[in-house]
Amino acid sequence: MRAFFHTRREIVDPLGPVFVDTADALADFVLRGGKRTRPAFAYSGWLGAGGAPDTAEAEAVLTACSALELVQACALVHDDIIDSSRTRRRFPTVHVDFEQRHRDRRWAGESAHFGTSVAILIGDLALAWADDMVHWSGLPPAALTRFAPVWAAMRTEVLGGQLLDVNGEAGGDESVEAALRINRYKTAAYTVERPLHLGAALADADADLIAAYRTYGTDIGVAFQLRDDLLGVFGDPAVTGKPSGDDLREGKRTVLLAEALRRADATDPAAATLLRTSIGTDLDTDAVIRLRTLLTDLGAVDAVEQRITALTDTGLAAITASNATPAAKHRLAHMASAATRRTA
Amino acid sequence: MRAFFHTRREIVDPLGPVFVDTADALADFVLRGGKRTRPAFAYSGWLGAGGAPDTAEAEAVLTACSALELVQACALVHDDIIDSSRTRRRFPTVHVDFEQRHRDRRWAGESAHFGTSVAILIGDLALAWADDMVHWSGLPPAALTRFAPVWAAMRTEVLGGQLLDVNGEAGGDESVEAALRINRYKTAAYTVERPLHLGAALADADADLIAAYRTYGTDIGVAFQLRDDLLGVFGDPAVTGKPSGDDLREGKRTVLLAEALRRADATDPAAATLLRTSIGTDLDTDAVIRLRTLLTDLGAVDAVEQRITALTDTGLAAITASNATPAAKHRLAHMASAATRRTA
Repeated sequence: MRAFFHTRREIVDPLGPVFVDTADALADFVLRGGKRTRPAFAYSGWLGAGGAPDTAEAEAVLTACSALELVQACALVHDDIIDSSRTRRRFPTVHVDFEQRHRDRRWAGESAHFGTSVAILIGDLALAWADDMVHWSGLPPAALTRFAPVWAAMRTEVLGGQLLDVNGEAGGDESVEAALRINRYKTAAYTVERPLHLGAALADADADLIAAYRTYGTDIGVAFQLRDDLLGVFGDPAVTGKPSGDDLREGKRTVLLAEALRRADATDPAAATLLRTSIGTDLDTDAVIRLRTLLTDLGAVDAVEQRITALTDTGLAAITASNATPAAKHRLAHMASAATRRTA
Repeated sequence: MRAFFHTRREIVDPLGPVFVDTADALADFVLRGGKRTRPAFAYSGWLGAGGAPDTAEAEAVLTACSALELVQACALVHDDIIDSSRTRRRFPTVHVDFEQRHRDRRWAGESAHFGTSVAILIGDLALAWADDMVHWSGLPPAALTRFAPVWAAMRTEVLGGQLLDVNGEAGGDESVEAALRINRYKTAAYTVERPLHLGAALADADADLIAAYRTYGTDIGVAFQLRDDLLGVFGDPAVTGKPSGDDLREGKRTVLLAEALRRADATDPAAATLLRTSIGTDLDTDAVIRLRTLLTDLGAVDAVEQRITALTDTGLAAITASNATPAAKHRLAHMASAATRRTA
């Protein structure tokens, strides 16, 4: 990724120091860290379809897969504007960083609007550079041709998932189906299914393996998000790094909450009212504890755990029955377990 | 473009009606109209480098060139957020449209923030789809390989130009050089130079023709923006469709204004103060007339007219001396005249 950012200097430098600084802010954001989940799944998909490591082709594949980190940079930078998030991984979010720079320099206009404007453009730059990195990867034309439609589907799906999320939040769609659909596109397709599919396309895998990857990706991806939702309510702050019950304060519309509301509406109207009036408010520790107990007592936690188990089982079964290499089956089983049984 | 939007349905439809509606809003925005300036220059560049119309290749080239309209959709949708613009071509801007939908449905949360969030994602979708359309165009792999680095440079340059503009506005850079640099990247490179270069790359043109196109594109593109700046102050509202003196009210940092400030600072401090205190305020008709007179008396209007003439001359000279086809030389001379001598 460093090497790719270096190639952009040729285009960036002639515009002068202001643009150089802004482009550097994007590079810093990407290089600062992250789990690199999407490139890891994509590269695993390629290896599992018979790709040979330690070759020139492997180098090009790894570069193309790493471009997913730039799509992710766009998604995070723009999501942080949409969610009005002030920090990410203990750093100020990009729009907050530039808001602060504006304030420090006592510039004209509204600092917050300046920060948002710059962050919109930095996200756009990340999205454009993601493509540029794929083209720069050294993939042969035939591989690029197989890559393109999957890449296209992935980007449209993640943007669609984000749009459903924004609409669901505003429109107050409380159904389990709506929450599952957002998980399917915003998380599963984007994080696991399409990355594996990209790797398979690069290796020119057969239709059976692609189908198996996609089943695994959808199921493990949704299970991953369901685990995330449980950790957002029940996670140990010392392990997750987030305040306990943060998702309840933020009013995140998860499958867990949808499941709880559905059950409460059927059996316990008072509990339903309590959930609707308290979720998304500034809850103290006691209130968080009471809501946790309520979610558990309604059976919503068990229902989500059962979904995780069922999805993990079907996802793993698809991989086990596939013609992926033995090493890839082992690796993907491990990644499934890490994604669905983690504590942080 | 309609055919391309139709192909996206396969990916969009499974996400459900909310995403279908949002994707339709993007299609409506693009299909509603516009001058199609960038595809016209790109296709002219291809013809001028010997491309043969009425062939299957011409069809693919025209499709790839039309993808520039999707880059432009992203630029306009995001720019309208950045500039807080409420209308575009007599329609509500995209963020205002979705703000209104939110309000009409009495949804939860802030309507303006919802509108901005959706518009950020719609702009992202346009940027992603621009690439998808290039891949879908039917260009052969070798042409795609020549296209990619020019496409990459163009997108980075326009985003860089927008970032310089946002920073210049906030930081109060009043220099002629700063205004010219923004024109160079935000307008000229993006609207004329790189589109012609894209067409030339598709036709596998030689280095001499590419250099001539780029000189023409830079010079005519900047001259086009300078004409735009003059029309923004002196244009006839009946012809431009914009209120007279609108750029003065908006406080747009143009070369015209920079030129006037530079001259006033050297010769007439009172005029400089008047310009700095009145530009960007809610001016009445009399005040607009007084400022017009001042800009003229300071010699700034003449200086800008001279720049337009000089740039048009050097741009046309480059094309005349080039090995572009006679028809293309004729067409580009006509387009230069239309861009730099227009009244609207």
